[in-house]
Amino acid sequence: MPAAHFPDSQDIQQQVKDRWNFLTKPPGSLGKLEELTARYAAIRGCAFPELKRKGLYIFCADHGVTVEGVSAYPSSITALMVRNFARGGAAINVLCRQFSIEAIVVDCGVNAPPEPGVIDRRIGSGTRNLACEPAMPRIEAELAIANGLGLAEEAVERFDIVGIGEMGIGNTTPATALLCALTDADPLVVAGPGAGLDAAGVERKARVIERALRLHNPDRGDVINVLAALGGYEIATMAGFLIGASRRRLPVVVDGFIATSAAMIARALSSDSIATAFFAHCSAERGHRIMLEQLRAEPLLDLEMRLGEGSAAAIAIAIIEASVRLYREMATFSDLG
Amino acid sequence: MPAAHFPDSQDIQQQVKDRWNFLTKPPGSLGKLEELTARYAAIRGCAFPELKRKGLYIFCADHGVTVEGVSAYPSSITALMVRNFARGGAAINVLCRQFSIEAIVVDCGVNAPPEPGVIDRRIGSGTRNLACEPAMPRIEAELAIANGLGLAEEAVERFDIVGIGEMGIGNTTPATALLCALTDADPLVVAGPGAGLDAAGVERKARVIERALRLHNPDRGDVINVLAALGGYEIATMAGFLIGASRRRLPVVVDGFIATSAAMIARALSSDSIATAFFAHCSAERGHRIMLEQLRAEPLLDLEMRLGEGSAAAIAIAIIEASVRLYREMATFSDLG
Repeated sequence: MPAAHFPDSQDIQQQVKDRWNFLTKPPGSLGKLEELTARYAAIRGCAFPELKRKGLYIFCADHGVTVEGVSAYPSSITALMVRNFARGGAAINVLCRQFSIEAIVVDCGVNAPPEPGVIDRRIGSGTRNLACEPAMPRIEAELAIANGLGLAEEAVERFDIVGIGEMGIGNTTPATALLCALTDADPLVVAGPGAGLDAAGVERKARVIERALRLHNPDRGDVINVLAALGGYEIATMAGFLIGASRRRLPVVVDGFIATSAAMIARALSSDSIATAFFAHCSAERGHRIMLEQLRAEPLLDLEMRLGEGSAAAIAIAIIEASVRLYREMATFSDLG
Repeated sequence: MPAAHFPDSQDIQQQVKDRWNFLTKPPGSLGKLEELTARYAAIRGCAFPELKRKGLYIFCADHGVTVEGVSAYPSSITALMVRNFARGGAAINVLCRQFSIEAIVVDCGVNAPPEPGVIDRRIGSGTRNLACEPAMPRIEAELAIANGLGLAEEAVERFDIVGIGEMGIGNTTPATALLCALTDADPLVVAGPGAGLDAAGVERKARVIERALRLHNPDRGDVINVLAALGGYEIATMAGFLIGASRRRLPVVVDGFIATSAAMIARALSSDSIATAFFAHCSAERGHRIMLEQLRAEPLLDLEMRLGEGSAAAIAIAIIEASVRLYREMATFSDLG
């Protein structure tokens, strides 16, 4: 996993390693759990960190590119799912209840009236069709990033760790387009079925992305421009959130394909911005593995999930919590005499 | 994963699949979580099963073969860890607290006086040295299996799901020997470091196993004999537990290398006995992957753990619980209108 490179990181990671070896177990026998605690502690800047207050942000938005038939579901499902989140009936709500994680729903630009109980950070009522014009003007990309930075500032006060996930019908298309723009990946190779396209649909989606890349000819040297041309409001907001969290040493568990595209944007904007990120899983969406390799991220889980919402991040938070609890609560051999 | 093949399994699995597709998510998007619920429901014989009462059994015993220098730790650590379990200071206690799982410690034959709070199913004070004589007389293997059957009968009344794990200094040696006896695997290839042997130690251990295999020349047609010659009290008890649980449709999450060796014995004794088993993870111990392949088991986690105790099983139980909660608690699209 990407190293946490704060000035005190090495020292803290060594302290954590030393303590693990005093606990009642063979050295190293908890495998990745031991590494997770070391990294978590390094991020928090404390060799005996707490992990109690857990949040999960679900960033929601609509996408103009859905008019191209790139999704198995109609755009209107986004608003329906936002209501589902607010009422507690979605997958992410169930997982957050089980693992005592507070779920926070953020409307970054859904094509529907604001929903009670949902944080309003709306940039618009969905992006434009990125196959024909920039998904958003540059100023909107900047505003969404600023929203993310602001939300991270609030999250720092309230949580020890947060997950980030999303909902937005059509959003595997911008995420795939961003992957292609940032890495030269071929849309025909990396485009996947998203929420459930058939083979013909996947090819159509790849052609739409090809068309968009030709149209915008995005310049990697101007990341905001890439994001504005091909991104989404929730992706831009998550990118800002990651940057803000990394500055304030808040651990962020990145969920799946879309959230990872935001991590790629964040890293391109500021190389340190994934220094506090954990990557929850490798999703079943084709391009995700490539993104994770690009970020040198080692995902924790591989349960063939491809739902988004933060669903894998919630499970990963429980595993990181387990690692910290083990580290804090296990007896030492000297306790046993 | 091995199919649950009760008379009503196919019907129930289909009902579960159908219900998953009514819930507010794209079909199949929860990946393995959807399969886990289908299998859990098929095992329970109910298309809308509960998963509330969770137990984790830690089977403990000592091993005479430790005199051959096959472990990085002295035998006396087994009794110390049993005390640690009873006091709540071990890794498995921490995990069970986090995930609301009841931990139950069973002394199957530790070389120490019985510990308060630990269930006494002692067969002896540790096995004999399997490199020189049978680890136990045949009657002891049978008694340990009977103990496991009895414990499973009690578990059926108390739990919806249980994990099985173990503690016993030296027990990767009998587990590896059983793997070799049941599959023709070569000790020099499959023996691993256990709790922390160096390369020379691993070779010594492999030679001890070779010697034992030559001495006993175990006949696969007589599984009890194989178990008596090369096994351990905790392994035999777990094998009995698995057989009992499968008869009573109790789901059992098998932890790591040692617990999986018990699953191999159980399956050799009765081919249906892993019909209710889930396999928690692929441990870092070399032979575990081979065992899992032999059993056609798909482990849930790969966190490079190699602790035992049921530590990976506890995390896997939380994930199976998540799958069942999602299935039971998520809204349907018609709930949303």
